[in-house]
Amino acid sequence: MSTRHKDSPETDPTLEADVFARDCASRPVLQNVASRWGVLALAALREGPYRFSALRRRVDGISERMLSQTLQALERDGMIHREVQHSIPPHVEYTLTDLGTRVADQLVGLIQILESNIDTIVAAQDAYRRD
Amino acid sequence: MSTRHKDSPETDPTLEADVFARDCASRPVLQNVASRWGVLALAALREGPYRFSALRRRVDGISERMLSQTLQALERDGMIHREVQHSIPPHVEYTLTDLGTRVADQLVGLIQILESNIDTIVAAQDAYRRD
Repeated sequence: MSTRHKDSPETDPTLEADVFARDCASRPVLQNVASRWGVLALAALREGPYRFSALRRRVDGISERMLSQTLQALERDGMIHREVQHSIPPHVEYTLTDLGTRVADQLVGLIQILESNIDTIVAAQDAYRRD
Repeated sequence: MSTRHKDSPETDPTLEADVFARDCASRPVLQNVASRWGVLALAALREGPYRFSALRRRVDGISERMLSQTLQALERDGMIHREVQHSIPPHVEYTLTDLGTRVADQLVGLIQILESNIDTIVAAQDAYRRD
């Protein structure tokens, strides 16, 4: 399958994105949204807008630095919108874009499948250990 | 929210899995299925059963070692089934379980959103760079 490469100077409209091709521009985007913290940040923002510190509390266990890097990557890829509120003190609020909302819906669906099947998963893990 | 912890000796049926809690058993499972290679391996297996070597060709760029580790984690979590075929030479075939199929469906949906919106994403990346 033809692929859209991230380093091509001109984008050829006849080329299609293919995440299975190692150089396709879609692959690093997939990695950002499906990363350890990317998934949780997007799923949290599906609940509504968050300020940085509240988002950090919601995504239990993330460091300030990792949340900052995660949000930067998601903003760069057009998944989230960052807005500085000129309040006193100033705050930064994060919201999902339309595309980010669609991506987050898939991730929330994934999380719900895993959470509601945790018994099956734990049973599989136990069986694997016993083999 | 109460959570199911991975190290609890007894599972309490009143506890619910919550991926946002850092010690919940569902979080490492999410990391395995949403990992860089986990996503691609599951999406590939949604196309049908694969032998190891064919799967490695499909998931362009993965090393033998990484594919092996990825498949092991997915098998342990009950997402895929590994079957040794007693042919000459013997082959190992991988298929999705019912749960793995549901998880893969979500991931394929995610991939399709990213692939079909790659123009929007690349435009966002360009705008971010210019800022």
